[in-house]
Amino acid sequence: MYKIKVHVYLKENILDPQGKAVTNALHQLGFNEVQTVRVGKYFQLFTDNVDDIESRIKSMCQKLLVNEVIEDVDFTIENAA
Amino acid sequence: MYKIKVHVYLKENILDPQGKAVTNALHQLGFNEVQTVRVGKYFQLFTDNVDDIESRIKSMCQKLLVNEVIEDVDFTIENAA
Repeated sequence: MYKIKVHVYLKENILDPQGKAVTNALHQLGFNEVQTVRVGKYFQLFTDNVDDIESRIKSMCQKLLVNEVIEDVDFTIENAA
Repeated sequence: MYKIKVHVYLKENILDPQGKAVTNALHQLGFNEVQTVRVGKYFQLFTDNVDDIESRIKSMCQKLLVNEVIEDVDFTIENAA
């Protein structure tokens, strides 16, 4: 069994109001060392078949998981056997 | 500048209907090798001050970022200077 960890997050130049809200909440709780927070999505995909998996994942991202206009993505593949 | 990557995801025994919907959508698109998807949150925290940061992050998670009844968390700290 392989575990693919996919991170999807807003591009740097895109405003992130959710992240801003989290930043403000952390400051109110006294965590003033945190300057910025950006909030994204984290997909864990599980599969046994890793034939051609890198290009398959890129295709999944393009077709479903990522809005490439505003989001960036990175992923790692781990053997979770 | 340090970048802290925080992953928050549902515990294994908690149903994930959002993940199930993503799994079904991937299957409809022909990505049948994906058996399960779990959807979580991905926070990127930026800070210059890493004094006592591990325990500070654990505290942020307990107080704001994570619902420990149903969610697990892991994090990594990177020098993003």
